[in-house]
This record gives sequence, structure tokens and C-alpha cells, in this order.
Amino acid sequence: MRTKKPPMGWNSWDCYGAAVNEETVRKNALYMAEHLKDYGWEYVVVDIQWSEPTADSHEYHPFAKLCMDEYSRLIPAENRFPSSAGGKGFAPLAEYVHSLGLKFGIHIMRGIPRQAVHEGCKILGTEKTAKDIAMTNSICFWNGDMYGVDAAKEGAKEYYKSIFELYASWGVDFIKCDDICRELPQAEAELKLLSEALRGCGRDMVLSLSPGPAILEKVDVYKETADMWRITDDFWDDWKALYNMFERCEKWCIHTGAGFWPDADMLPVGAIRQDYDENDRTRFTEDEQRTMMTLWCIFRSPLMIGGEMTKNDDFTLNLLTSRQILDMSENARHAHQVFRKKVKDTEVVLWTAVNAKGGQYAAVFNIGEEKLDMTIDLEELEIYDPSDITDLWNSEKKEAVTKLDVSLPPHGCSAFLVG
Amino acid sequence: MRTKKPPMGWNSWDCYGAAVNEETVRKNALYMAEHLKDYGWEYVVVDIQWSEPTADSHEYHPFAKLCMDEYSRLIPAENRFPSSAGGKGFAPLAEYVHSLGLKFGIHIMRGIPRQAVHEGCKILGTEKTAKDIAMTNSICFWNGDMYGVDAAKEGAKEYYKSIFELYASWGVDFIKCDDICRELPQAEAELKLLSEALRGCGRDMVLSLSPGPAILEKVDVYKETADMWRITDDFWDDWKALYNMFERCEKWCIHTGAGFWPDADMLPVGAIRQDYDENDRTRFTEDEQRTMMTLWCIFRSPLMIGGEMTKNDDFTLNLLTSRQILDMSENARHAHQVFRKKVKDTEVVLWTAVNAKGGQYAAVFNIGEEKLDMTIDLEELEIYDPSDITDLWNSEKKEAVTKLDVSLPPHGCSAFLVG
Amino acid sequence: MRTKKPPMGWNSWDCYGAAVNEETVRKNALYMAEHLKDYGWEYVVVDIQWSEPTADSHEYHPFAKLCMDEYSRLIPAENRFPSSAGGKGFAPLAEYVHSLGLKFGIHIMRGIPRQAVHEGCKILGTEKTAKDIAMTNSICFWNGDMYGVDAAKEGAKEYYKSIFELYASWGVDFIKCDDICRELPQAEAELKLLSEALRGCGRDMVLSLSPGPAILEKVDVYKETADMWRITDDFWDDWKALYNMFERCEKWCIHTGAGFWPDADMLPVGAIRQDYDENDRTRFTEDEQRTMMTLWCIFRSPLMIGGEMTKNDDFTLNLLTSRQILDMSENARHAHQVFRKKVKDTEVVLWTAVNAKGGQYAAVFNIGEEKLDMTIDLEELEIYDPSDITDLWNSEKKEAVTKLDVSLPPHGCSAFLVG
Amino acid sequence: MRTKKPPMGWNSWDCYGAAVNEETVRKNALYMAEHLKDYGWEYVVVDIQWSEPTADSHEYHPFAKLCMDEYSRLIPAENRFPSSAGGKGFAPLAEYVHSLGLKFGIHIMRGIPRQAVHEGCKILGTEKTAKDIAMTNSICFWNGDMYGVDAAKEGAKEYYKSIFELYASWGVDFIKCDDICRELPQAEAELKLLSEALRGCGRDMVLSLSPGPAILEKVDVYKETADMWRITDDFWDDWKALYNMFERCEKWCIHTGAGFWPDADMLPVGAIRQDYDENDRTRFTEDEQRTMMTLWCIFRSPLMIGGEMTKNDDFTLNLLTSRQILDMSENARHAHQVFRKKVKDTEVVLWTAVNAKGGQYAAVFNIGEEKLDMTIDLEELEIYDPSDITDLWNSEKKEAVTKLDVSLPPHGCSAFLVG
Repeated sequence: MRTKKPPMGWNSWDCYGAAVNEETVRKNALYMAEHLKDYGWEYVVVDIQWSEPTADSHEYHPFAKLCMDEYSRLIPAENRFPSSAGGKGFAPLAEYVHSLGLKFGIHIMRGIPRQAVHEGCKILGTEKTAKDIAMTNSICFWNGDMYGVDAAKEGAKEYYKSIFELYASWGVDFIKCDDICRELPQAEAELKLLSEALRGCGRDMVLSLSPGPAILEKVDVYKETADMWRITDDFWDDWKALYNMFERCEKWCIHTGAGFWPDADMLPVGAIRQDYDENDRTRFTEDEQRTMMTLWCIFRSPLMIGGEMTKNDDFTLNLLTSRQILDMSENARHAHQVFRKKVKDTEVVLWTAVNAKGGQYAAVFNIGEEKLDMTIDLEELEIYDPSDITDLWNSEKKEAVTKLDVSLPPHGCSAFLVG
Repeated sequence: MRTKKPPMGWNSWDCYGAAVNEETVRKNALYMAEHLKDYGWEYVVVDIQWSEPTADSHEYHPFAKLCMDEYSRLIPAENRFPSSAGGKGFAPLAEYVHSLGLKFGIHIMRGIPRQAVHEGCKILGTEKTAKDIAMTNSICFWNGDMYGVDAAKEGAKEYYKSIFELYASWGVDFIKCDDICRELPQAEAELKLLSEALRGCGRDMVLSLSPGPAILEKVDVYKETADMWRITDDFWDDWKALYNMFERCEKWCIHTGAGFWPDADMLPVGAIRQDYDENDRTRFTEDEQRTMMTLWCIFRSPLMIGGEMTKNDDFTLNLLTSRQILDMSENARHAHQVFRKKVKDTEVVLWTAVNAKGGQYAAVFNIGEEKLDMTIDLEELEIYDPSDITDLWNSEKKEAVTKLDVSLPPHGCSAFLVG
Repeated sequence: MRTKKPPMGWNSWDCYGAAVNEETVRKNALYMAEHLKDYGWEYVVVDIQWSEPTADSHEYHPFAKLCMDEYSRLIPAENRFPSSAGGKGFAPLAEYVHSLGLKFGIHIMRGIPRQAVHEGCKILGTEKTAKDIAMTNSICFWNGDMYGVDAAKEGAKEYYKSIFELYASWGVDFIKCDDICRELPQAEAELKLLSEALRGCGRDMVLSLSPGPAILEKVDVYKETADMWRITDDFWDDWKALYNMFERCEKWCIHTGAGFWPDADMLPVGAIRQDYDENDRTRFTEDEQRTMMTLWCIFRSPLMIGGEMTKNDDFTLNLLTSRQILDMSENARHAHQVFRKKVKDTEVVLWTAVNAKGGQYAAVFNIGEEKLDMTIDLEELEIYDPSDITDLWNSEKKEAVTKLDVSLPPHGCSAFLVG
Repeated sequence: MRTKKPPMGWNSWDCYGAAVNEETVRKNALYMAEHLKDYGWEYVVVDIQWSEPTADSHEYHPFAKLCMDEYSRLIPAENRFPSSAGGKGFAPLAEYVHSLGLKFGIHIMRGIPRQAVHEGCKILGTEKTAKDIAMTNSICFWNGDMYGVDAAKEGAKEYYKSIFELYASWGVDFIKCDDICRELPQAEAELKLLSEALRGCGRDMVLSLSPGPAILEKVDVYKETADMWRITDDFWDDWKALYNMFERCEKWCIHTGAGFWPDADMLPVGAIRQDYDENDRTRFTEDEQRTMMTLWCIFRSPLMIGGEMTKNDDFTLNLLTSRQILDMSENARHAHQVFRKKVKDTEVVLWTAVNAKGGQYAAVFNIGEEKLDMTIDLEELEIYDPSDITDLWNSEKKEAVTKLDVSLPPHGCSAFLVG
């Protein structure tokens, strides 16, 4: 499906890892409906290991027994998702999310469960078994659940058809597929098979590919098969990772828009890593969080909140409801870096984009370690006439200027709408 | 100097190589004034070897004796540029060009003449000689005239100051400096010295760096020192080179605009290679020439005509006076490739750019070897409402469309203004 | 164990692939005892998949059920190795081989059976199970039987101890361990654990590592853990592979000797690929086979016959019983390539080695595609006095010569003992 | 010419750089005749810049005027080599060296003097001038004297013929040619032309190529054209450089012998860098100097003394007259590294070679930073019988041993003859 703006939502990974459960999902969905929905946030996504009954942190349990139906399809662990009892799968939970006016997503791994293979399980609608379509040498290097599926084998298409029809029957709107994005070209045939099965399942679903870094040369494969794809390995609340994202975004910006969303990963804001410590909060400073939001929005990355939202403080909620910054995510066009350079003892990045509703965006980032005082001539943006400018983080407006004066702390940023 | 649009003009290399002379320059300048000036063409540039009396083709004469003043500065060969007699240099020729309402440019090589070094010549305004500032191991690999100058040596700054002051006194508006663009980082200090001397000489001159390919990682150095820089080695009338330019332009597009002009090289159109055969013409087909012009203009490369203009046929003149295509060169903003992919048996590239005067440009190129019939949904350009479109090569207009239907021969293109 | 000369024997892979059975082993052992033992041949090695009841060719059956004891240890498939019935394993077959005055070897894969892991099998002498020591992400890329063992886990050491004690109880003299040689550094800890278990099992066994190419920089790890290691991927009867072996041998020759044997792989001679066609024979010409034997012997590769020996023709038997060539395998020291160069339209390689019993070996190979006529001055071998030379393939002797005259067909060779 | 053992001699570079003069050469030649000749030392080589009148240290003077005859051939600067006055060149100095029973060598640069080119000088025996055969883009990156010669040009062969005939007329026995060894493949045609001219000049001369590192893949070109070639850039009295030589020697050892001598460069022993400080001495410790000599001799590098010999102290003279170590240089065959590994906290290298006069050499090097106590089983050298061993540095002899006990300080070594 072609989405007109980058998908926005919440994902359970940053706050609960593999240990997410139904109660958590419900309360975060409710919070989103009450506090964030009006700002465009809509997807509620259950991340990895929802079929593993003993999952309790960000760590996986090697060779743990998974919940599975007779057709080699993983189903939610009832002890963690009680409403799934009686073979209902995620349908009741999805129904609840939909009742709030939101959309529901789940995580899957590329492939078929190893346990289905070694137990000789069936594949729906064929005489074949899991053994017949699994590849002995296609595995995920960081999770032991699955074997890759050989797209050339009889039964492979039926397997993928069977799982997406199941998910459609549950009411799933968003699939985050893991162990696939950076696995090209070896997983390319399987990705295409999977994508076709998803698109043919009778329900619109966003397809998100993980983990990154995506391979730039394979951009056409991503565009052909998916809606969004990760341009980075897991992103966490570490300045170095944020610093590096500027280079990744510069590289991918010309491939963003018109339903294609290179993905800078979840926003590790607010209360994260709750499975380890309920008091843990993002280590990003407020400046760094604004820098992250500004970059994600001018670059037009998908926006997926990583924190336990019910524990949002005022700063976090304000960050996630900055109307003008979020407007930039929707309306920016043709975004690109203008320069990146040393200015005195610090390092500065300037991005610009056209606003589809009029005017031109500009974002200045101080990614060095010293305070920045700088004047940017609007001519550097090919704006040769005096123009009005609005500061998007504080709504201050100046009239008929020819220059931007910026004064930024280390890791800080400013974002403007010119004209 | 910051130019608001890509420089446009004529350069003698493609048609005369090292053998250009005064008569040729005058008649081409006159032609430009009469036929092209109204379309924005303005620079008339004398390319390499104007100080070499025996130059007669695109080949160099090893260790040929050059015309030089007592201060190690090359001066025009009088036998080829008669108006330079009596120490007048290029001043009379520049004056003529200016009298036509055009601008005058010359080619130089990085460095100081080897013959000045081995003859122990002086440097103006110092006690030093050429020997003192030349580097024994800095040479050009394809031309034997010069040694590189050691920017750290006393006298180096004075040498560069002396040559640009001479050029300013002649009335030069444009310097194409060779053996420098792809020679970073080893020539970086010399480039900075040269650029500062040029900017301090008292006359505005465009600085064009050659030959390419420029080094992407050095973009900030090019922006700091120059107005335009070659992104390719010499470009000739060969489809393979044109085909490859799409990748180069994709890579450089985010660095284009606001006075910075990555340069795809001269346009080898019309009567070229005249030093070898007066009947020689470009081997590009008409489709290929339109493809070249369209790419150069949406990417916003400088436009420098390579052919002997007085021999232009109707096609060539029309090509160079296509108002709407040239407007795109002036007004396109944020140009970038949208996709490049196989379509059936051929290969298609789509570029887009915003028009600073309103609307959005789109250019479709069939760079494969089979005919292309294709429909492009305007949604692929994030245009979701029905829009008017104008075909820029034939001015046809359609109203309220949602799709572009393109039918293109191999190597052909279409360019549109949407909205 | 430190072997004084390169191991010599027979291996079932080239002729039977995964389908080798007891009858085949017995008849080949008997043949070796009767025809080859006197020439130094001694090891009889059962290659891969002896625990897989349905193996029937060189192809593996994905996820096939293997024969295994309660302690996760693979045991021979009784249908293929009847004497193993009743839990006797390979003991009866080994006993038979020993009764012929020969030695017995088996193939193993690095790791622990996936089926033991997914079935939760025990490990002898511990409370741990296969699940506890297997790595979810350590697999073989060309065979689906095993998971790698995590050497850092409790139970890992006991597992390897338990398998080598089993093999020792059977009377195994030679272990060919697969999926390990080129898997460094990731399999390095497991290799060291395995090697220590083997050496501590109470019975001398040669340890042979497969498949190659071994990693030159890891030579010290190979020397520390093993007796021989493959310097190439599987070698077959293809001239290109033989041609390439010259470069591999040149690279590895300085690491050969004193119990360390870089391994150029089995000799695909005589009746090979019998599982596909009983009439199949090596595609190597007679010249190529002599070239192979000469290179393997002067380089001192292990010598493992690949063909069904009972079908040897006269040529093959003569090849394998060329006393003087086999002497070279035992007595060559400090072998190295002297030159490799174009001579007229063909390509020539000269190797030399010292004979520990006196004199100097020289081998000339015509590895090009044209006939070679050439004279090699003995001075090129630093032999400055006239010397006697013996042609090792035909025992012709010449006295007091200073030059070697060689006349060789394409792919042919000559080998000499000088002095 | 094929030399039977590595060339031995003295070279002026390490002690005088470009500043060597006649008096220095004479006194060093005399010293060699009196103290070293009996040990095999024979070549006396005048290194770089003997035609530059103002050379006074290891630094070059950019664009200095050189002494040259009318045929573009450099001749000795009379102020530095008085006996060359009157057009005699090096003939008188060579005659003196010969009178002492020694041989005479000189350094040359690849190419033709730039000053000959820019002055338009003649080439003996042709109508061509230096301009006609020089390449504008072939220079040396560390010395500004020459242009490379285009082997394809008429006159090129005559030029090289003319210089070697001049050197032959002077009585030169050894040519060290610089700016050529690591300049392949671009200088390959010039090297071949030069080598043929040298071999056709009517006098036997050793051809030594400099500087390194030589290119391993080009070994056949070196063997075809030269007697010795540098495997390293300039080697000085720095442990790191000596440490690195072990790897270089391992790589090149199979190409040593039979008149081919990969060259580890001069021995920086005794009084070196005399042009900067008359009191300067090698910074190598005594252990390091023995390690260097042992490696050079078992590897069979050429041996060229770098120090001012008349200032030799007892240690240095003893080092250079260690009969048994020098015998190893003459008689070692098939030398190669046996192992290189960590032993406790230090690093150990073992080399071995066959002695052409009987027995086997072994050299143990402690190249780590801790004391080494180690026992090496002779079986590691494939010596399985008890053998007599002689310590080559102190002539101690042990009978019927099976092991070598070595106790070495950091950077120290032992060398043995076994059997």
C-alpha cells in the first residue's frame, strides 16, 4: 500500500523487549488514543517473541518452545496474551485497538519455525511439510527460532499465504518483518514471495523491513516489496548513534517519499528498558531528543515511539505533540543536506526541504561538542528575497529577513519554515 | 562569487583542442552574441595551450617552448593571438568579447612553467625565483608544461597573486583551472592558495576546476574554493559516457545549487574535432542530445557548448535555444533521481525537481536499448491531485491529469512541468 | 601425534559420496592390503553420513533422521553397516581393517546433532542436554545435521570427550573433521576443545581438518590442533582445479613437514562417482594424473585415494605404486617452487626439494596448453657441478650432466633426482 | 651475470648520504682490502648524487645543476671527485679500487637528466635529443634529477647503451639503479631496455634495483633483468624495521638463490650518518645487530655495509668477520621460516636451511620484548636422529643431541649448524 506520509506509532521493543504482554499493549493503546491520536499517531505494534511463553526481557531463550498451530504458524502465548485463548489469536486485541480508532501491528521473523521443521508439521493447503520448504542453511544470526524458506520449493508460497491470511483474519494492519532487510541478496527471493503473499491476503498492511542497515544498492527491491525499511541497526539512546544517523539520512534522502520510507528506527524516548528497571528513562538530553525529532521529521523517517507511554513526562509528551515539527514530517518534500562542516570548534549540519503547503524548511544541527553561534545567509538556500521565518520549536516569527542567526548548544538544533 | 544559476557559455576544446586561435574565438563570440545571448549564454572560454606557438591539434607537444613573460607568467602566443602583440595579452580579445555583451574566460594549468624553473625565472614582487617555489615531484600526468607550486614556500602566494592580477588587467571573467580537481588531497593547499589569490585580485571571476571525477568526500573543499567542478573525466559524444552520467548526477545532486555547480562537462554538439576533420560532427543522435540537455538542465550542470558554433545546423541551434529546458536549468531546485529501474527490456530513470517559479519538474529517460511505453502515476512524485502538465520539448499541454504516459525510443527522454 | 610422513590411504567420498557402506569398505580395505600396503598406503576412511540410513548419493537429504545414541552421539546406520548392530558401532569394521594390517578412519562434522538439540537429548557424564551447549547460530552451510558447540558452555567439553572416547573404544585411528578448517576464527574455540578431547582420549588418532581453503594467517592454529588441513575446497578431476593447485602449494610449502601436512585433497583417480554411474572413471588424462601425483609428492600433501580401488586398471595401480615418486613424498625436504613462467606459448613450473637421503629433487610441469621443449641449467638449482640424474617416472639415468632437457606434452611433467 | 653467492660490499649512503667524496671512498676501500676482503667483502659502491657539486648531506637540493657531458650523461662532480678531472670520469677511482683486489660500483637513477631535456642536449650516436626520449610524466617522487625514458622512442636504446658503455670504460662492476624497483609495471619497459643495455656493454656488472618494496607478483621481471632487488624501503637502525623484515623475508625466501638475491638493504652498523654528526653510531644494540646479520645470512640477502668502516670498533669488525655466519650466507639452501609464534610473553621465529656442504642450519630469534627460555625438539626440523650441533656465534659444539635449548634476551638470536 502507498502511504502518503511516514507511518507513526508505538512499538514495544524499546520498553519491554521480548517480554511485552497484553496488558501493556492495551494501556499504551489507550494512552495513544487519548493523548496522541490527534497528532497523527496511529499504529500500535507488538514486537518480537509474542509466541514464546517464557520470554521475560530483551534476551532470547535458545531453543525455547514456541506456541504454534498445527500448520506451522506461530500463535500468541496465552499466558502473555490471555485474549488469544481458544484459538482467537490476536483478533481480540486488534479489535480493541481498532475500537480506539487506531491500527494494530505485529512483528514476525522471516521463515518457518525450526520446531515445525524438526517436528514435521504440516503446511496449510498442501501435502508438504515444514521440512520440505525450510532451508537447512538459512538462519537468523541473532535469534534461533526460524529457518528461512526456499521460495523455489512447492509449498513455500502456500506457507506465506497461510500466515498472512491468518493475520488478516486477526485484523492486523502492520507487519514488522525481521531478519530480512539487510539479508539481501540471499533473502531476496523469500522477501518477494512474502511481499506478494502479504499484498494478496485481502487486507491492507504496511510492511516494515528490519533490521538495518539496508543496502543502498538494493533500494529498488525495497521499494518493490515494502513500505519502510531500516537504514540502521537497532538505534538506542546513545549520542554516537544519533550522530551517525546524519550520514545515513544524507545517503538515503533521495529515496524518501511517495510511499517509500527509509526508517531511522524507533524513538527511544521516555520510559525505556522497563524489563530491566522500571525507573529507567532515555539517556538522551532534551536537546538531543529535539535533534532526533527534527532530523527524523525533515528526513521523513517513520516515527515509532519506543517508550512506555503511560509514563511520559511533560517534556516527552510535548516532544511527541509538536504540531509544526510533525507537520514537517507530513509535508516536507525533496529534503536533503545542504552542508556539513566544521565551524570554529564545532560541527554543523544544515538540511532543507520544500514544504508542500508553501515555503521552505531549514534545520540547523550543532552536532559538535562546542556552543555554536552562526549566521546562515538565506542565499545558501537559494532564497534571494527577504522572507518571513518561523521557528518551528517555539513558533517565534520574524519578518523579511535575509539571514538566519542561530545560537545552539552542543547537540542542539533549530528548525525553521521560511516564506 | 556566488552565481545564481549554472554558468552558460562556449569552450574551444571540443572543436579545436590545443589549436584554438583568435579568429576562431572572435567568430564564435560574434555568433553567440547574435544567436544565443538572449537565451542566457554568455561565457566565451579559450581552452588549453594558448601560450604554445606550435599547438595544432588535441595532442600536446612534449617540452614545447611556451610564451612567457619575465615573471614566469605564460602569455598568449602572438602567432595565434595577434592582438596580444606588444605585451597586451588577452586584453584586446577580452575587450572585443565584452563589447558584444559577453564574458571572457581562459584556461590555466595548476602550477608554474617547468621552463621558468629550469631557466631560473623571477617571480613578480619577490626576490625568489621559480626554482624556489616549484615542487620537483608535483606534475600533471597528461601535460608536461608545469610543476606544482609548494604553497608553504615563500614566493608562492606572490606568484599566484601576480598571475590573477595579470588576468584581471586583461579583463578575464572566468578561469578554468586544470590538473587540480581530482588531485586532492595532494593539491589541496595549492588550490586554496590559488582560490584566495583569485578572489583577492580585484575582479570577479568564476573559478571552474578540472578535470574530474571530483572526489565526493572533498565537496566542502570545492565549495570553499570554487564555483564549479568537474564530476567526470573528459566527456565526449559517446553513449556509454552519457549513460554513466546518470549515476554521477545522482551522487552529486544534493550538492548542487546556491552558487555551487557540479559540472558534467562540455556539450559535444554540432561541429566538433575540427582540428582533425572540418566535416566532423557529434556522433550523438538527436535523441541522445535531448537526453543530455535534459539531464544537464534538471541536474543544473554548467552548460558549455563544445562545438564550432558558426557551423550549427538547425537542430543544434534549436537544442541550445529551447527556452523551457533552459528555464529548468535556472529554476530547478532540489533535483534528484526518483527511481532507476528495468522496465520490461529497457532501463528507465525518473528525475524530479521543484520549479522555483511554481510547479514541479519531471524528466523521464529511456537509457536502455528497447522502446519504452510506460505510465507513471503522479503519486510517485507525491502529487495526489489532478494537475496540468506541459511537455517542455514541444510545449504540448494537458489538463487535470493524474498520470504521465511516456513513449520513448532508446536513449530518448521527455521532460514535463507539472502544475 | 607427529607423523613422520604425509598420511596415505583411501577415502570413500569420491567414489560413493554419502552412500558408502560396509561391504564397500571391506572390499577396498582388502584390496589395499593386497596391492598397496607395501607401498605405504594404510588408512581406510569412511566419509560423511554414515549415520544416515537413507543416504544414497553425493547429495544430502535435508533434515533426514540420523542414528544416534541416548547421549547425542551419532552411530552407524545399521542398514548400511550391519556389523554395527547391537550397539557395536564401528568396532567390528575397525577390527577387520586392523586385521589386514591397516588403520581405520571416520568422518565427523563439527558440532552436535540438531536432532539431539530439538529432542532435548542428554550429554554423557553431565546434567546438561544438547540444548545447553548448542549455538543457535552456528551451522554448516552445506549440510544440515549439526549445530556448533559453544566451547564456553558447561557440558561442551564433556560432549567432545564422550564422542572421542566412543571412537577410541571402536578403534578409530583417523578423524576427518568437517565444517571446521575454513571456519576460523569463529570455530576456533570449538576446534581447540575438540583437539584437546581427541588427544586426551587414550588412543592415537590423526586429525584431518576439512574443508578448505585453510586460512594462511591461521597456520599456527592448524599446527597446534591438527595433523593435516585442507588447502582447497573439494578437489575433483578437473584440469582447472589442478592448475590452481600450483599456486596453493606455492603458498603453503613453507609450512609442510615435521608432522604438519597441508592437504591438497583426495586423488580422484580410477573409478569415481560410482553412486551415479558404475562406469564412471576419472576425467584426468594420464599426463594429468602423473602431474597430480608429482605435485602432491614433492609438496608432500597427504595422499588419499578417491576411487573404488577394486576397479583399478593397470595405469591407476602403477600410478599408485610408483616407488620413486612415493619415496619423494617421504623424503623430500624444504620443497618450493623455483619459477613459474611463460616459455614460448606454454607455461612452466619448476619445483625443487632436498632429498633427506641424499641428492636433490626437481619436478618440471608443463601447465600450459602447448608442447614444451626446454633446457634447464642445473645452475638454476644452485647445482654447479656435473651430476647424475634419474628420471623418477621411468628410472632412466644419465651421468654427469649440467642440464635437464625436458620435452613435455601439455599438462605433463617430469620428475628427477639429481646427484 | 649469475653470482653464486649474495654480493657483499660497502655503500656510502648510510654514512654520507648524497655527500660522499673521493677521499672517503678511497679510505674505505683501503680498509676493506686490509680488514674484510679475506671474508668475502668485495664491492665498494658510490651512492647517489655524485654528479651534484653542492651535495652536502642526505637531503637533495631541488633543481640543482648537475655535471653532465655533451651527450646528456652525468659525470662525477670534480670538486668532490678530483681524479675525474679532464673527462676521466670514475676511471681513476675504479682503477684504485681494482688495485686493492676489490670491485667498484656506482649508483644511477632511472632516466635522463631533466636538465638535459630542458637544455635540448644530444644523445650519443643518434640525431635525437633528450627531449625526444624523455617522458613528461615519468618522474621520481623523491628526487628531482631525472625524467623517465620512453623505451618505445627512437634514441632510447642508444641513450642507455651510451651510459653503460661509459661506465664500462670507467671499469664499473656494480650498478645500483634507483627509482625503478617498486615502479613496476609503469617502469617495466624501461627496466628491460636498461638491463639489456647493461648486459650488452661488454663488461660484467651486477645490477641492483632500488628502492623497495619490490612487488612479489613481479618476481619474474626482477629475475629476468637483475641480480638483486630491494624488498624494503630504506632500512635504518630501528628495531621496528628489523622486526618487520622477518615477514618480508618469509615472503621472499622461496625466490632466493641461484643468482637471484632479494635484498634486505644495507647494514646500518658502526659509524653512520656522518654527514650530520661525526660521533653518530648505529642505534641497534649488539643483540639486534647479531639478529640482523643472522637473518640476512640465512635468508641470503646481499650484505652491504652502511657505516664508515675506518671507524669500526671491535664489536663491529667482529660482527662483519664472523666466519661461520658468513659461510651460512654462501652455503644455505632452501631457507624458510619454520614457525613464528608467541611463547609465553615473547615472540619467537625459527628459520632453517640446508647447508650445501652438509648439515642443516637453524636460527632462533627472540623478536618479542621478554626473555625467552625454550627447548626446540629437532623433530620440528624433521631431524629424527641424535645429531651434533655447533653454535655459529661462539663455535661451541654439543654432540648427539635431540633438542636445542635456547635462552635469549629480547631481540637476541642463536644460530646453529646441526649434523
